[in-house]
Amino acid sequence: MKNYFSSQFKLGILGGGQLGKMMLYDTRKYDIQTYVLDPSAEAPSRIACNYFEQGSLMDYDTVVAFGRKVDVLTFEIESVNVDALEALEKEGITVYPSSKTLRNIQDKGIQKQFYIDQDIPTASFKRYPSASALLEDAPTFPFVWKSCTGGYDGKGVSVVRTAQDLEKLPEVPCIAEAMIPFKNELAVIVARNPSGAVTTYPVVEMEFHPEANQVEYVICPARIDDHVAQKARAVAEKVSKAFEHVGLLAVEMFQTEDDDILVNEVAPRPHNSGHYSIEGSYTNQFEQHIRAILDLPLGKTASKVASVMVNLVGEENHQGQVLYKNIENIMQMDGVTAHIYGKKETRPYRKMGHVTIVDQDISVARATAEDVKKMIKVISE
Amino acid sequence: MKNYFSSQFKLGILGGGQLGKMMLYDTRKYDIQTYVLDPSAEAPSRIACNYFEQGSLMDYDTVVAFGRKVDVLTFEIESVNVDALEALEKEGITVYPSSKTLRNIQDKGIQKQFYIDQDIPTASFKRYPSASALLEDAPTFPFVWKSCTGGYDGKGVSVVRTAQDLEKLPEVPCIAEAMIPFKNELAVIVARNPSGAVTTYPVVEMEFHPEANQVEYVICPARIDDHVAQKARAVAEKVSKAFEHVGLLAVEMFQTEDDDILVNEVAPRPHNSGHYSIEGSYTNQFEQHIRAILDLPLGKTASKVASVMVNLVGEENHQGQVLYKNIENIMQMDGVTAHIYGKKETRPYRKMGHVTIVDQDISVARATAEDVKKMIKVISE
Repeated sequence: MKNYFSSQFKLGILGGGQLGKMMLYDTRKYDIQTYVLDPSAEAPSRIACNYFEQGSLMDYDTVVAFGRKVDVLTFEIESVNVDALEALEKEGITVYPSSKTLRNIQDKGIQKQFYIDQDIPTASFKRYPSASALLEDAPTFPFVWKSCTGGYDGKGVSVVRTAQDLEKLPEVPCIAEAMIPFKNELAVIVARNPSGAVTTYPVVEMEFHPEANQVEYVICPARIDDHVAQKARAVAEKVSKAFEHVGLLAVEMFQTEDDDILVNEVAPRPHNSGHYSIEGSYTNQFEQHIRAILDLPLGKTASKVASVMVNLVGEENHQGQVLYKNIENIMQMDGVTAHIYGKKETRPYRKMGHVTIVDQDISVARATAEDVKKMIKVISE
Repeated sequence: MKNYFSSQFKLGILGGGQLGKMMLYDTRKYDIQTYVLDPSAEAPSRIACNYFEQGSLMDYDTVVAFGRKVDVLTFEIESVNVDALEALEKEGITVYPSSKTLRNIQDKGIQKQFYIDQDIPTASFKRYPSASALLEDAPTFPFVWKSCTGGYDGKGVSVVRTAQDLEKLPEVPCIAEAMIPFKNELAVIVARNPSGAVTTYPVVEMEFHPEANQVEYVICPARIDDHVAQKARAVAEKVSKAFEHVGLLAVEMFQTEDDDILVNEVAPRPHNSGHYSIEGSYTNQFEQHIRAILDLPLGKTASKVASVMVNLVGEENHQGQVLYKNIENIMQMDGVTAHIYGKKETRPYRKMGHVTIVDQDISVARATAEDVKKMIKVISE
């Protein structure tokens, strides 16, 4: 077994945003050396790693040169140069998740086709080279438009109800997905290591903000029947194995009116829907991702306490040096923990942090979460 | 309310060992800027702070110059130049705990006398300028010898059973304490902020290693009757208020055969007996210390799950580059989290890390802790 702790071993992380920052909580805990690459000199992960490099994640030469410095390479964002990952794999650098997994996920059209080919339940879809090609195909309204690449934090996804809506969309490769009425949006995080060990987290329920297409409350455990939860976890595990995925895979799903589970999309990394796990789970998702990619035993995924997470996003009409208004008031509330990502500038709807509320009782946590949401505001000074 | 988060505010920490390192987990979480001073270039806190300075904590000029760079100054070790702290306070730098509190604690003779003067229950004692002066006083054996200053991690404390034992001790100011038969060694951590809010953690039970005078298991909650636990927490709260202590205060106590509580000694900082709180409590002790010294609301101290902590200390007959033998085996066990402090060299009995075991059931956690202790060994490569 390789010696990862207080040794010469180096873990590389492509991307230095809040997901990487939260991975660093656990690499510090275990004293694992970390190298981080990010385009921004003010990246949240800039401190708490052993070596920080400023550079482009989409530049082939930059990523290859960076990857050669480490023993195992991972990423916290899908927008990385996947050809560079493949080149590094050929040179013998361990890359998890693999370039093959990432290629199957990065392009939403390829991702959806993968589900169909692997017999994984998902809404029907069709791929188009552009929005006008889609319009020419006389689609049935309403449907869901998604750009094949570049979507992030709710962007690149639109509900299309009329031909006029469609005309506003960019001329890029896209998919049109059937709009299935659903009861709940759910997520299951799966961890899988190279030795083949797999484990799933309890199902989380995601309540979405109607306009911004960003999640408002993440609730764990989801308030659904046990048999539906089991089905969701089984589907997520099937997806992970189909991708031969190593590391964490967040599987977002719909629970239909008939209690069927349809896969929406996946993220091959720690995910917003798993942040509750830092305070709520026996093994938080960031530690789990590290265990998985280092082929260490996977940890217990059960919850210690019920958890609700709310995102801290910049208020509309506020831009500039950030101020977390009333944060001291929410710190007064039992079981409430704020996470401030370290981005200096706030912008409308920018993800600046999150707050996790834990309690033995999920309904107490959910009620407190509403109070938190009303109280704390992310504004500019 | 001062803006501490993602701002120009600077928190200074004197000392960069594992206690400071674990404080940095929470300053990163909240994006609070931190400055750290430590004599070692390889201090565990060297990364994950915003600014690290190598220098002596006992040097007046070094500490004063460092303290002038920050807005609030704290420490993670009592061996700091307390005159420098007092000078900084006079210059208007906020120092918590205060120099006055530290003076009452640093010297064990002064500390013991403080308890007597404040009517806090403690074993009777007498102070001497040297071990030979103590011998001349014809003491009753056995008793407990403690050096007035410089004791750490069990050093500077000895059970003296014969005059020969006494002759082996160094000629330094010391106290002789009556040896009271006790059922249990307990600890209660108290947090108090400048506004006067006080809160105590559940009582922990400490099982000690017979020879090395280091704790073997820290168990929370202590397996004692409720009325004894309440008494212990009340005594701890009284001690904190008597010191007018701001920040964390770890109060170590004895439970006598008659279920009385006697104060042994205190540490004005996060403490080994509170490490379980990272996985076990609603608010971990490091976050609590930061809340307290910044006059933020104190967090809930209750436990989410029962916890047992074991220290990882260097094996006898091993010195050199450290290897955590079988760490991957303990990572297989449910509810087990290792903390590796980041010290590169192991030495016999050196505190290299700790392992916390959590479970809904304390006896399951305690049993697993034994398996952990048998399995993992801190050796040299």
